[in-house]
Amino acid sequence: MNSRHTWLAGVDVGGTTIKLAILTEEGTFIEKWEIPTNTADSGHHIPSEIAAALRLKLNALDTDFHALKGIGVGAPGFIEAETGFVYQAVNIGWQNYPLSERLEKETGVPVFANNDANLAAAGEMWKGAGEGAPNMLAVTLGTGVGGGIIAEGRILQGAYGMAGEIGHITSVPEGGAPCNCGKTGCLETISSATGIVRLAMEKVHRGESAGLKEAFDRAGSLSSKDVFEVAAVGDQGAEAVVEEAMFHLGLAIGNLANSLNPNVIVIGGGVSRAGDRLLRALRPHFDRYALPKISAETTFEIARLGNDAGVLGAAWLARQQGNRSE
Amino acid sequence: MNSRHTWLAGVDVGGTTIKLAILTEEGTFIEKWEIPTNTADSGHHIPSEIAAALRLKLNALDTDFHALKGIGVGAPGFIEAETGFVYQAVNIGWQNYPLSERLEKETGVPVFANNDANLAAAGEMWKGAGEGAPNMLAVTLGTGVGGGIIAEGRILQGAYGMAGEIGHITSVPEGGAPCNCGKTGCLETISSATGIVRLAMEKVHRGESAGLKEAFDRAGSLSSKDVFEVAAVGDQGAEAVVEEAMFHLGLAIGNLANSLNPNVIVIGGGVSRAGDRLLRALRPHFDRYALPKISAETTFEIARLGNDAGVLGAAWLARQQGNRSE
Repeated sequence: MNSRHTWLAGVDVGGTTIKLAILTEEGTFIEKWEIPTNTADSGHHIPSEIAAALRLKLNALDTDFHALKGIGVGAPGFIEAETGFVYQAVNIGWQNYPLSERLEKETGVPVFANNDANLAAAGEMWKGAGEGAPNMLAVTLGTGVGGGIIAEGRILQGAYGMAGEIGHITSVPEGGAPCNCGKTGCLETISSATGIVRLAMEKVHRGESAGLKEAFDRAGSLSSKDVFEVAAVGDQGAEAVVEEAMFHLGLAIGNLANSLNPNVIVIGGGVSRAGDRLLRALRPHFDRYALPKISAETTFEIARLGNDAGVLGAAWLARQQGNRSE
Repeated sequence: MNSRHTWLAGVDVGGTTIKLAILTEEGTFIEKWEIPTNTADSGHHIPSEIAAALRLKLNALDTDFHALKGIGVGAPGFIEAETGFVYQAVNIGWQNYPLSERLEKETGVPVFANNDANLAAAGEMWKGAGEGAPNMLAVTLGTGVGGGIIAEGRILQGAYGMAGEIGHITSVPEGGAPCNCGKTGCLETISSATGIVRLAMEKVHRGESAGLKEAFDRAGSLSSKDVFEVAAVGDQGAEAVVEEAMFHLGLAIGNLANSLNPNVIVIGGGVSRAGDRLLRALRPHFDRYALPKISAETTFEIARLGNDAGVLGAAWLARQQGNRSE
């Protein structure tokens, strides 16, 4: 049986599933599992369902909540880090919801909450591609473009927990594509998986890429990885899409690096499955727009933790904040 | 006579003059004066000349170095905050120069060094336009465009002390004007005092602004303030210059605010003498490119401390770091 208060729980609340993990203080997984996200009643059942899932697993490990030093929770939305109060998490249903308070009441364990993109960044800093880098920029290229900024080993929160919204950097100041945020021309309309596929489908519809059309006809859909692969065999239409997406990403990240001076930039999310192909296409644009010294000293890495980044980052948060409040 | 270790010294090393001040721990000026910057022998005499100036002033106040809790020093260049080691300060002559070590040897007082733009930002946070704001972006529109980022009440340093180089955000990705940094199209080629005057002189030479020509002919030169004033009386050429400078500044700051989420953005430097005229021209561009919630909650202020910002920020640094190491 575990001695008291030495383990950590990491929880990553998504729109469809909640990922949970129990870890040692050193970040070694003891258990890792998922439960469905119950979005009924504006997500009000979620804290008790997280608590029940943790209790069952701890009991199976022949222990209880006393084994936990803290619980870290990430969710997609605007969250006040100090209080764990969720202003809004649209996909979950929470609005002005005291997440940490509710989960502490259910478990009796200190709870620390933060935005999921920030915690994925923290996870990569702790155990992944940014391991040991005190200054890190994490960019997640998925449905949207998410960001997490680590400065001197801490999550950069900003005034209202909104720091890191790099997907809404404006890449096209006039006449850009509409974005979910209400603006137009945001980076995520171009360089996200969604953006890359949108640009690729334009090429298909205009008959400007035989390779993309063939890939689309074969599978009935296109992924951003398809676009990188078709570009790699010399299809000019696909190459133009990759260039456009990587130009805007390199410009935005280069500008950010001039302001933040990170040791390492970690690229994750579905688009990062293109791996070295992505980095080779991205780097020249970054090098052109970053200051010479920044471009010389900043390294790029593909994220390593995949879906584990969120629970690892949540556990890191519980460890860091728990140590601080002792 | 002052009791021991309760005062602070703030030193702001510029290319022409060194500004010095002795302050209370609360930031009240006891003395404030300047000496010329001796750039001979690659700036090697500067620490002993700073020490001599401080010693004389402390003696005149009937005390000595024991009165000082710490000395903060700012200089224009790349400085490692932890050690006070200056990698390079071109205008001063220092290269790989152990500034803090030398000044500590001369004075026997703990010395803390940092980039001058960062310290000007810290000064405005402590006693100026950003007073009490834990998250602040300071933008200095002078010969160049400088920046300082305050996050959770601390200076954001980045990996090599280069954070805050916002003047080298690329505003014109293709075909922009050459910048001193070696790139082209940097924000400071457009929105600095130098950039605004450059754009205004183009209007004069092309005969596109009767108002700017008249102002130029009257004074033999143009300032950025002239450009704002001529624009304010409806001169279309001058209005176009203001619009271009404020469009690029608003876009760059809006993008940064999406990433940093500051409480307040403080605009300083020579261009900020245009005051409300500047803010009225800037704000619509910022509001267009910042996320709706960021635009709604971020305030703008004109810097208040003028030339005192640097020595106040340096004293703040000495106070903060001195408290930490006790």
